[in-house]
Amino acid sequence: MMISRFFFLFSLIITSSYAAMQDFCVADYAAPQSPAGYACKDPTKVTVDDFVFSGLRVAGNISSINKVRFSSAFAVNFPGLNGLGVSLVRSDFSVGGVVSIHSHRDATELVILIEGTVLAGFIASNNKPYVKSLNKGDTMVFPQGLFHFLVNVGNTPALAYASFSSANPGVQFLETALFQNNLPTEIIAKSTLLDTVQIQKLKRLLGGTN
Amino acid sequence: MMISRFFFLFSLIITSSYAAMQDFCVADYAAPQSPAGYACKDPTKVTVDDFVFSGLRVAGNISSINKVRFSSAFAVNFPGLNGLGVSLVRSDFSVGGVVSIHSHRDATELVILIEGTVLAGFIASNNKPYVKSLNKGDTMVFPQGLFHFLVNVGNTPALAYASFSSANPGVQFLETALFQNNLPTEIIAKSTLLDTVQIQKLKRLLGGTN
Amino acid sequence: MMISRFFFLFSLIITSSYAAMQDFCVADYAAPQSPAGYACKDPTKVTVDDFVFSGLRVAGNISSINKVRFSSAFAVNFPGLNGLGVSLVRSDFSVGGVVSIHSHRDATELVILIEGTVLAGFIASNNKPYVKSLNKGDTMVFPQGLFHFLVNVGNTPALAYASFSSANPGVQFLETALFQNNLPTEIIAKSTLLDTVQIQKLKRLLGGTN
Amino acid sequence: MMISRFFFLFSLIITSSYAAMQDFCVADYAAPQSPAGYACKDPTKVTVDDFVFSGLRVAGNISSINKVRFSSAFAVNFPGLNGLGVSLVRSDFSVGGVVSIHSHRDATELVILIEGTVLAGFIASNNKPYVKSLNKGDTMVFPQGLFHFLVNVGNTPALAYASFSSANPGVQFLETALFQNNLPTEIIAKSTLLDTVQIQKLKRLLGGTN
Amino acid sequence: MMISRFFFLFSLIITSSYAAMQDFCVADYAAPQSPAGYACKDPTKVTVDDFVFSGLRVAGNISSINKVRFSSAFAVNFPGLNGLGVSLVRSDFSVGGVVSIHSHRDATELVILIEGTVLAGFIASNNKPYVKSLNKGDTMVFPQGLFHFLVNVGNTPALAYASFSSANPGVQFLETALFQNNLPTEIIAKSTLLDTVQIQKLKRLLGGTN
Amino acid sequence: MMISRFFFLFSLIITSSYAAMQDFCVADYAAPQSPAGYACKDPTKVTVDDFVFSGLRVAGNISSINKVRFSSAFAVNFPGLNGLGVSLVRSDFSVGGVVSIHSHRDATELVILIEGTVLAGFIASNNKPYVKSLNKGDTMVFPQGLFHFLVNVGNTPALAYASFSSANPGVQFLETALFQNNLPTEIIAKSTLLDTVQIQKLKRLLGGTN
Repeated sequence: MMISRFFFLFSLIITSSYAAMQDFCVADYAAPQSPAGYACKDPTKVTVDDFVFSGLRVAGNISSINKVRFSSAFAVNFPGLNGLGVSLVRSDFSVGGVVSIHSHRDATELVILIEGTVLAGFIASNNKPYVKSLNKGDTMVFPQGLFHFLVNVGNTPALAYASFSSANPGVQFLETALFQNNLPTEIIAKSTLLDTVQIQKLKRLLGGTN
Repeated sequence: MMISRFFFLFSLIITSSYAAMQDFCVADYAAPQSPAGYACKDPTKVTVDDFVFSGLRVAGNISSINKVRFSSAFAVNFPGLNGLGVSLVRSDFSVGGVVSIHSHRDATELVILIEGTVLAGFIASNNKPYVKSLNKGDTMVFPQGLFHFLVNVGNTPALAYASFSSANPGVQFLETALFQNNLPTEIIAKSTLLDTVQIQKLKRLLGGTN
Repeated sequence: MMISRFFFLFSLIITSSYAAMQDFCVADYAAPQSPAGYACKDPTKVTVDDFVFSGLRVAGNISSINKVRFSSAFAVNFPGLNGLGVSLVRSDFSVGGVVSIHSHRDATELVILIEGTVLAGFIASNNKPYVKSLNKGDTMVFPQGLFHFLVNVGNTPALAYASFSSANPGVQFLETALFQNNLPTEIIAKSTLLDTVQIQKLKRLLGGTN
Repeated sequence: MMISRFFFLFSLIITSSYAAMQDFCVADYAAPQSPAGYACKDPTKVTVDDFVFSGLRVAGNISSINKVRFSSAFAVNFPGLNGLGVSLVRSDFSVGGVVSIHSHRDATELVILIEGTVLAGFIASNNKPYVKSLNKGDTMVFPQGLFHFLVNVGNTPALAYASFSSANPGVQFLETALFQNNLPTEIIAKSTLLDTVQIQKLKRLLGGTN
Repeated sequence: MMISRFFFLFSLIITSSYAAMQDFCVADYAAPQSPAGYACKDPTKVTVDDFVFSGLRVAGNISSINKVRFSSAFAVNFPGLNGLGVSLVRSDFSVGGVVSIHSHRDATELVILIEGTVLAGFIASNNKPYVKSLNKGDTMVFPQGLFHFLVNVGNTPALAYASFSSANPGVQFLETALFQNNLPTEIIAKSTLLDTVQIQKLKRLLGGTN
Repeated sequence: MMISRFFFLFSLIITSSYAAMQDFCVADYAAPQSPAGYACKDPTKVTVDDFVFSGLRVAGNISSINKVRFSSAFAVNFPGLNGLGVSLVRSDFSVGGVVSIHSHRDATELVILIEGTVLAGFIASNNKPYVKSLNKGDTMVFPQGLFHFLVNVGNTPALAYASFSSANPGVQFLETALFQNNLPTEIIAKSTLLDTVQIQKLKRLLGGTN
């Protein structure tokens, strides 16, 4: 029909080509990245499956030390998130499970507790802690870049989802940043005031050397 | 002690005052806003309770038309989120419940389905729909500013959480934007191609006039 | 001369190479995009013609339904705009012409009426309409991501230019997003409250299926 | 009616209050500014007139030196633009009129020539000029922060509109920055290589001292 | 004179009022902040002294534990920096002085060593350390939000300046965040794997309790 | 060991791959740029040397006209800075040395004087100059995009470091932008009000033509 043919042309000229290219930028992991994220997959090859992710259906592998399992939906494994400024992590806590102290380089975290009772907190840069026991359905926000942690203080497993204000929030855990590499014990000691014996003990536990 | 006294001074000078003021900006709803969000509450009056929110523990009021209940954790009601670029909504679907077509002016949405089976989709600006049936544990991303919707297509209630890349994502529902105000029927007709009878029927249903 | 030779070297070392590469990023449509826009053309091949565009000299093709013609200067067709956060559209209205309800995913629109009399409006996310009749020389701003429209209510053709706070503002028209694709009628009905008959009528008009 | 009453409550709870406060931030010139712009007017006092501006209907006052008239629609005089990242200027050139060399601290400029013939150009930071003669309907982009100028080289008046990627683009004209203040002639001479006689002549012309 | 009078009016209308208000936003510490920074001082009361800071002329108070002195030029004490995205710290190291492990919530750090020999490093979020000995004149960049440290490994004092990509970079030192507050020892132990004895020893040293 | 093996897997899955790719984006100068900066080097090939730069150890080449030497650490020559929003320049002034009037398209400058006495200033867009004599240790901020200059007014050489709120701050010097290219004298005259004789004299000095 004449009219719909016009509209076909219209959308071609005014919206179609750029829109498909600019409404989203599904990650092409094979091309070089830019400071703004991954390069964009050819939009003509994008399908709805690029925007759907099933990796959070199940808990991740367990950490026998911290008794917690993580599954993440970040731009690094969920290509549809690239450039869109939001992501999600599922955390399954066993009894006594802990998400140990960590920070996110470029993201605020908003956690919601689905099951269990968890003690959650962050530490401001004036060293003041903000700590609260969360119950089922509670949410807590950890402002960008600050140390925070969650401890399952209940008698049952716990489940939480954490949203982030970044598609690829950097995660830096204190314990692995310090003790799971070859940074010399002497330098760690000088720059943390921790005792050498303590550092070496945790290096052994976590696989660090030197 | 001498040393800790020094550190007290140190943190006072180097970190304490500005840090407390700049790590976060808890909303002060009484002061004028800026384009960047609400004004900040006096940091000396901020407590952990400003960062914890219990409003998502329960479902919101039901919409008898769309059979869905919303509870939101946005900067407008959760002051600790102000300026931090992330927020959360809980959606409880009855059987047949629908989150009708809407868009967010300044936010991408990342939804995770906790219970049920939901058909979810968005429409790109070249009019191409991206639609998929989500099962428990699936996540789907709706890129910023595009129309999207969720329909409970299962035989049971459904529950979903939606994260947003904004602390206060504007929500514009097509049906209420068109039919729940006094925009004259004639103008709506001209600018949507909808029939007058259809417009008037929905204005009556949703409380619109003119 | 010694001095100018120094300056030649100076600009080479201090400004020349990076400046040419960073003052602008003329779009290279053949390379993969990033979330920040198109890749940059080799700066040594950039000429003044990359920054000048003549496509707005004339009106675009007419839409026989809406009696309006669009010509756009977006990064997708005007490579010099890439990454620079501004763009322009020319709208030529016949008598009775309409720019139907639409939104821009990531851009505010600032329209100036050059000829004619146009009724213009936007709808806020609390459903409140802001509508005004514009005369020659008037400007109106449509805040980012909200539905807006323009209707030629005069007895003469009208001409408007719209500026955008984005180099590639996504455009989503309600009528084509709903009715110019294969989204099933039943889903549209559920997620808009529109009647099936209405939906099917507009799908026929605009070329949609299902 | 029951249903519309629900929707009234619904929009009150979910969208109404924050939406009115966050869809836009109409400038309140009386309150203190923030780095993000003017404070927001109480949204309950905002009307459509805050989003419409008639100041570009007519040319501004003429500059007898440069034979050009400016009318601007910036956040400083058009409150609805505050925080929205776009603005507009109308430039009316007499025969021989000139928009002299200037830059915008935080904005790209996209100019469209409505009438006349104008020579337009910008200078990149490697000192390379990009200059072109524009005809009616042509647009040219001046990337952010670079010197640019327009000269009416036709035999008739010219008219142009310039869009900016900022709601309040700083404008710094070379001639007034150097010669319309009390910066001592000796300092100007040292920091520009201009001759003292030249500086003093232009200070006299433009009202500078010292 | 006629002409200069015109220019006076011109600058009044086109540039004067908004420019003074928008070129900068000198901090008014008494007004409420926004997420974008401090409120702006009345521009008519701003003087050149708001843009000049002498607090880095001398070293700060010494930390007897870490043998380092800090002086900072942040928006919190240098009002002219507010909203401008850059700041500076002077670090004076005694022999053996250490800037202990810390991160900045929202800023990259670029350090330049003026005197001495310093071992500097950061740890990426995959736990890989990037460490190098810096000599006089060397610069090193610590990407945003990652742990980093500097140790004077020479036989003489050292002096460094650190620039930040933020006007008020949050600083979180590991040792004070963990041990200079009332966060219970048991929680720290669980969320860091550190031994109770170690934690208590450092709490005593740094003034923490519980 | 079992535990460290787990942690190896953990960091592989949760943090390793994306973290290495997203904590930083070391410039790959050979790949096409994006509006956000240079493409990222393959993170597996990044070493600590990409984050350390020795080019500021010594003064740059001297300008015999302005008696000043520049060495810069920008993303264009220091690849580790790419995308990180900060950079540094060293300026060595001979007696009488001048950093002539210039602006930065996208960066605020924060200068610290290490040696000497320098008169520093910037001009706001309402033409008001902010000028001050700086002594050793003083810092001054030049807000983004405004003209500024520094003149060694002491009897000794001077040394300053300038930090920028951009990894690649565009630098546009007035004297070379006007007089070190082939922009016709007549156009410069019209768009600056400078006399033809003055323009031609400086073109000869600086190597310009036309």
